[in-house]
Amino acid sequence: MLGSLTLPADLKKLNVEDLENICEEIRQEIIAICLKNGGHLGASLGAVEIAVALHRIFESPKDKLVWDVGHQAYAHKLLTGRSKEFSTLRQRGGLSGFLNREESPHDIYGAGHSSTALSAALGFAYHSDDWTVAVVGDGGMTAGVSLEALNNIQSPNDFGPMLIILNDNQMSISENVGGLTHILSHGQGADFFQMFGLEYVGPLNGHDLPTLLATINGIKSARPPRPVLLHLLTQKGKGYSPAESRPALFHGVGPAQVSDISGKTRALAESEPETEKTWSEVFCAALIAAAKKDPKIVAITAAMGDGTGLLPFAKQFPERFFDVGIAEPHAVTFAAGLAANGWKPVCAIYSTFLQRGFDALIHDVALQNLPVIFAVDRAGVVGADGPTHHGSFDLAYTGLIPGVSIYAPVIAEDFPGCLEEALTSPGPSFIRYPRGKAERRPEKAYAKVRGLQEISDRTRTLALSIGPVGNRLAKIRAKMSVENRESTAFIELVCAKPISSALIHEITGRKGQISKLIFFEEGGRHGSISADLASRLPAIEAVYFTYPDRFLSHGTVSEIEKEMGFSDDDFLRALNPA
Amino acid sequence: MLGSLTLPADLKKLNVEDLENICEEIRQEIIAICLKNGGHLGASLGAVEIAVALHRIFESPKDKLVWDVGHQAYAHKLLTGRSKEFSTLRQRGGLSGFLNREESPHDIYGAGHSSTALSAALGFAYHSDDWTVAVVGDGGMTAGVSLEALNNIQSPNDFGPMLIILNDNQMSISENVGGLTHILSHGQGADFFQMFGLEYVGPLNGHDLPTLLATINGIKSARPPRPVLLHLLTQKGKGYSPAESRPALFHGVGPAQVSDISGKTRALAESEPETEKTWSEVFCAALIAAAKKDPKIVAITAAMGDGTGLLPFAKQFPERFFDVGIAEPHAVTFAAGLAANGWKPVCAIYSTFLQRGFDALIHDVALQNLPVIFAVDRAGVVGADGPTHHGSFDLAYTGLIPGVSIYAPVIAEDFPGCLEEALTSPGPSFIRYPRGKAERRPEKAYAKVRGLQEISDRTRTLALSIGPVGNRLAKIRAKMSVENRESTAFIELVCAKPISSALIHEITGRKGQISKLIFFEEGGRHGSISADLASRLPAIEAVYFTYPDRFLSHGTVSEIEKEMGFSDDDFLRALNPA
Repeated sequence: MLGSLTLPADLKKLNVEDLENICEEIRQEIIAICLKNGGHLGASLGAVEIAVALHRIFESPKDKLVWDVGHQAYAHKLLTGRSKEFSTLRQRGGLSGFLNREESPHDIYGAGHSSTALSAALGFAYHSDDWTVAVVGDGGMTAGVSLEALNNIQSPNDFGPMLIILNDNQMSISENVGGLTHILSHGQGADFFQMFGLEYVGPLNGHDLPTLLATINGIKSARPPRPVLLHLLTQKGKGYSPAESRPALFHGVGPAQVSDISGKTRALAESEPETEKTWSEVFCAALIAAAKKDPKIVAITAAMGDGTGLLPFAKQFPERFFDVGIAEPHAVTFAAGLAANGWKPVCAIYSTFLQRGFDALIHDVALQNLPVIFAVDRAGVVGADGPTHHGSFDLAYTGLIPGVSIYAPVIAEDFPGCLEEALTSPGPSFIRYPRGKAERRPEKAYAKVRGLQEISDRTRTLALSIGPVGNRLAKIRAKMSVENRESTAFIELVCAKPISSALIHEITGRKGQISKLIFFEEGGRHGSISADLASRLPAIEAVYFTYPDRFLSHGTVSEIEKEMGFSDDDFLRALNPA
Repeated sequence: MLGSLTLPADLKKLNVEDLENICEEIRQEIIAICLKNGGHLGASLGAVEIAVALHRIFESPKDKLVWDVGHQAYAHKLLTGRSKEFSTLRQRGGLSGFLNREESPHDIYGAGHSSTALSAALGFAYHSDDWTVAVVGDGGMTAGVSLEALNNIQSPNDFGPMLIILNDNQMSISENVGGLTHILSHGQGADFFQMFGLEYVGPLNGHDLPTLLATINGIKSARPPRPVLLHLLTQKGKGYSPAESRPALFHGVGPAQVSDISGKTRALAESEPETEKTWSEVFCAALIAAAKKDPKIVAITAAMGDGTGLLPFAKQFPERFFDVGIAEPHAVTFAAGLAANGWKPVCAIYSTFLQRGFDALIHDVALQNLPVIFAVDRAGVVGADGPTHHGSFDLAYTGLIPGVSIYAPVIAEDFPGCLEEALTSPGPSFIRYPRGKAERRPEKAYAKVRGLQEISDRTRTLALSIGPVGNRLAKIRAKMSVENRESTAFIELVCAKPISSALIHEITGRKGQISKLIFFEEGGRHGSISADLASRLPAIEAVYFTYPDRFLSHGTVSEIEKEMGFSDDDFLRALNPA
């Protein structure tokens, strides 16, 4: 049916039964494509009836539908003329897994990080006669920016009619925590939101389409002078029983993760050989080993217990584990307080989400020189999640902070060494590592810098790499001509800040001899460790393999890297000139 | 009396009358020193009785007193063995104007940005038998990080006894706004805080010392299992009538600003000549001129209406002005929503506070390429406010964002040109400028880069500067030898990003001829525009005048610059070798 309608306009012609059939069709399509391509199955299945009701009642894009996070909006994509392309979801050149203003006029506001919808919706509602509708999850409501927006809804300025749909699935990425959850689950939602000047309606079953249609129609007709909060209870993964029963696991699935419609996942298979561990698993194993010896070690995350691999730690040390929900600034400042009182906090947050705690990193942690360790997961290109999720900026935004240490382990074996140094440091440390598997190279011992001894009187070119890209270079090296190989020294920076003074000394001492530097860094050029290092060296011709000064699209990691000239072939061409 | 006591221990020996005398003595000392040295008069005068009561009842530093922002804590400084040094407040080598862990064991947590106390206090309270007391203003409570902490106070982990004092003076930096203000002023504080699992006591008069002592003693003895919120009503500027009647103006005073005890301020004198305008005033004048022509221009700030100079705009266009309170992430995302709907938002926030909106700059504004303009005030060294307030990082943290434009006007005359370009840009722009006076050089016309035509075949050295430091160089130039002057070209970058391709082309074309680059940039080296530019040029010896990789202390701007080798003398030595 989806393919035969002109959407969203034709929705207005359908009766309730037809609309319910549309919901079922959308649900099957979401399940099929997510199992094939990977995607945010759980949240999107929970918001199917909401999307259908909103597009039936409002006139997008004249009325403004602002979907928080965007990954709950697959039904919205299917309802706005993208059903044909939906099979390309999250693939290179295909539909984004989030909202994207360039993808459709109905995606009026892009979002891959949570909790921005209320602020943005206020912007849309300013001096507007059309309706502005924000759809926010209960998890997204607990982040500071949502609460700041809530505090600003009573404004002296002129705002048009506004409907906020609280899509309450009782989950953030993992199980929800905190006072607001308590408020919502104890029937205090009305009291709470009315205090901030909202009309409150609910809670209602967010999958009961006739009720949704009647209620939202009623609100639209009444056009109350104050914004209305409609509290809907929904189920994450609704309609797909494996996701209903294990919602955290099915928050997002990878394309290879689910083997069949029954929901058997790869992650549930028997334990994997050492060589197949992810960086997140390597991190958690190292942390557990350290925590067994040191009772002062505690771990903090912000609704990323699953993703950062911390759950085994939480199971083993429940009293030493904190999931603060989607609240990165609080996570960082809370860690600073813990450190100021003698604890050894390890705060695990994705590179892209730690951007939310940037001021706290500077003001609360670094300025006070407190020994907080940040496990910066998903650093570098992440793949299908795309530009809102790539960890392109952390080397720049942590590198600029005075007095911090930054580690970028190259191989799994480096992790315990990095963690041990960070745990004995008097100040803050960052350990950054990518999404995916951690390679091993058992012959290599941990060192802050590897390869210094390679520099000899025959060296003309230095290949300087930061983090796991060094492991790629180790393989490319074998493909170089003997001549090029002998004149090139490969330096791996495991500790990216402070930069080794021995390295600077060695290069400076060979001024005139070394004629070329080639930098390899998984991050943008502006603010790179590479550019900073170069500025501390004599004038030597330099080539930079860094990310370009534009946002990177979604696709597989190798597709994205190839597109930006960051492939093994690109590296080999630079290292092995004719 | 203050000088003769061993503090804070001796407070326990005093009766209420003595303690009230101490309050009066503290108040007079704060007034006297703030009028001399400048300082945060208003907030600190409002918290005198609170500080006396807390130090009388609790045992600092065993019990943990966490003062939000720190500028309300002058009485705390006077009560913890720093009365002799108090006359050095905010002077180089003297007491900090905020809390500082290195200054006293009683300053257990440093803070110059607001709203961090609750998160930090939770860190201190973890597994603690001692009391943790957080003192937070009502303005500080509305920021996201405070609300995130509030949401996390009900935790499954083990936390010790906790008292939160809500120091409600009905103000943030300027008049308070938003839902929470409404809640507190309409007697709903108890309902609100109890929802988040706190015991609520109050509201009480925060200047009534006997009541404070009795109440806090009662709470301490009862040691309730849940954290207690004590709501105190206080008056900003209490005891100093000029500050009581004009609290926003007296939030902080500069040393030369108040001419006498009567409170006559320099800022209240008749209007000043053009040459004496601050950058903030230059900004607001340019904005008003533009807004008269374009009704789509709106202005947003986050409790910095006074400081950013926006009040004349607010007066002239009240419906186009938004003060969202202390809520920078919301301010940025709200601006993004406005821009997505066709408005032209100009968001004025200090460099150091905009750090709070870092993720929103990337995720909400730049990724969607929305034309939001950021007026980044207080960029560079600010002086007496010290390390929590210096704008050292914005060129790095904005420079790393793909696709943005960054302007650093050199002279007042540049501002309208920068603003006009930013207003016609399809994407985001930053205009960054320092605290203090904007110099004028009427002979210079606005250009993105000035001085390109100075480069000739005689040029050997390039002096490349970003922003107002270029104006200092223009004067230093006259002191150089004729020979050095003739071989040096001075390039002023008014547009710092994207970097002029003509400039890169010109330098690249003179490879071999130009033997030295000297960069001048008011920001840290890591992530500097200078290092980024150098990485795009041929290998040429480079000297960097940037801020060092450490936090800068407080003092006068020239003291701080001298200490870090950023003085005119340092510049002249580099530009004028023998």
